[in-house]
Amino acid sequence: MAVRRRGAADYVVGVTARAQTLEKAKEAGAIDEGTLDPCVGVAEADLIIISVPGRLQEEITRTVLPACRDGALLTDVASTKAVHVEATEKAVAELNPKVRFVGSHPLAGSEQRGIEAAPLLRLDNAWCVLTPRSSGEQEACRELEEFWRALGMRTKRLSPEEHDEILARSSHLPHLLSTVLIALQDNRSLELSGSGLQDTTRLAGGDPDLWTDICMKNWSALSRALTKCGEELTELAATTAAFSRPGTPEAEAARERLFRSLADSKDLYLKYRALREKRKD
Amino acid sequence: MAVRRRGAADYVVGVTARAQTLEKAKEAGAIDEGTLDPCVGVAEADLIIISVPGRLQEEITRTVLPACRDGALLTDVASTKAVHVEATEKAVAELNPKVRFVGSHPLAGSEQRGIEAAPLLRLDNAWCVLTPRSSGEQEACRELEEFWRALGMRTKRLSPEEHDEILARSSHLPHLLSTVLIALQDNRSLELSGSGLQDTTRLAGGDPDLWTDICMKNWSALSRALTKCGEELTELAATTAAFSRPGTPEAEAARERLFRSLADSKDLYLKYRALREKRKD
Repeated sequence: MAVRRRGAADYVVGVTARAQTLEKAKEAGAIDEGTLDPCVGVAEADLIIISVPGRLQEEITRTVLPACRDGALLTDVASTKAVHVEATEKAVAELNPKVRFVGSHPLAGSEQRGIEAAPLLRLDNAWCVLTPRSSGEQEACRELEEFWRALGMRTKRLSPEEHDEILARSSHLPHLLSTVLIALQDNRSLELSGSGLQDTTRLAGGDPDLWTDICMKNWSALSRALTKCGEELTELAATTAAFSRPGTPEAEAARERLFRSLADSKDLYLKYRALREKRKD
Repeated sequence: MAVRRRGAADYVVGVTARAQTLEKAKEAGAIDEGTLDPCVGVAEADLIIISVPGRLQEEITRTVLPACRDGALLTDVASTKAVHVEATEKAVAELNPKVRFVGSHPLAGSEQRGIEAAPLLRLDNAWCVLTPRSSGEQEACRELEEFWRALGMRTKRLSPEEHDEILARSSHLPHLLSTVLIALQDNRSLELSGSGLQDTTRLAGGDPDLWTDICMKNWSALSRALTKCGEELTELAATTAAFSRPGTPEAEAARERLFRSLADSKDLYLKYRALREKRKD
């Protein structure tokens, strides 16, 4: 929808698995033309964006590659990059070396999915990370950056591994924390909650299939982040338990330690909020 | 501000520590009259609401009690109840047994504080928990419920201990998770984040002093919740690490376990969302 509204492409061909979705896409003004055949869809394209559940990505990529024209630019929008980039580069080398590939990750998703959720995407000034692997991809990177910028996004280049390590902490860990937090509730605590629980559990509404795939692909950085976070919570539990004997030196030391850590977190949060405000300008 | 706008009291006297705050309160239309002397402020009041940082609550309560008139209704708005209710009941028995006390906790706060944050409070249909301890407080409870309902809130009675156990999970744990999550970020991950990190860390902007006090007062239920949450994360880290060898039976078992837990969390989240929608009606 944004591509056509912003004129970022002359002609948009949509490919989906279901005819009904194509109809919806046409009604929403998202595509000029639609097809259920991936190979027909990509045949004349200058830019091909693979946007499918992670577990299907390799298969679909391998299906369309032989049908892509020489020099076509291929990208994907998967939330993890290292595994997907490696698989796609291998597929390109094997099946159609004249296709140019650079991975993308537009950070503009919501926890909802489907064409109905499209208006929820906030592209303006949001980041799109490009994950080139070799210096030979300079020209392809520039073309792809131009495309995402035409949608109002900011672009940044990172290696697939850097991307995955950073996103493990800023995106994947928050998601898993949300799912753990909601699982610790019962009817009474769900009832007796304010906006705090609401905001901290929103991500738990995300698609389990999509997130299982993300965890599988980014297992290494994510399991490190989860371990670290678990340790921090265990330490906080010990600090809190020290308050069982108020007035003792242990309780006083715990109080100082807790206050310092809450104050540091608040400082970091305020810095983060200022960064977001600045980004909006 | 809501008390006067809704006509929930005939006359509102504000007591603060600083003259400047009284001026602001008058300008905002929050009070009919203001004073810096707590004893003057409570002298003719039918209802006294103690709303001060937790570490000052006992001292302020003890200061004003002798000045309260016979039969006055005293309440507080602290986020933890057991410790405060016990201290206040003891103070009432010692200093002015003719005062009637029932604790309150209106679940309508934001992470911000001060009179400037007042418009952020969402009282409509939000819960206010009353924490009576003996059956002799029936009449006082009814009067207090009538007051909070006049502000648009829903009321519920719980024992102080039940309140603290429930809120440890639905409010205090989410807060601490937010502070731990932001502390795991660095410049790059703060920069490369979307709305997920934003919502899950918002609570980290809360006042460190206030939250240190909450953790000290609710140490028992909170340290249990933190321990449990830490265990869940450690288990998730192990599950995720099993994906290091894709295709093995261990990885497949981990995939099923992870998918099941994400799907269960999503179900619970959707139930929670439906509950909130219903509450709005």
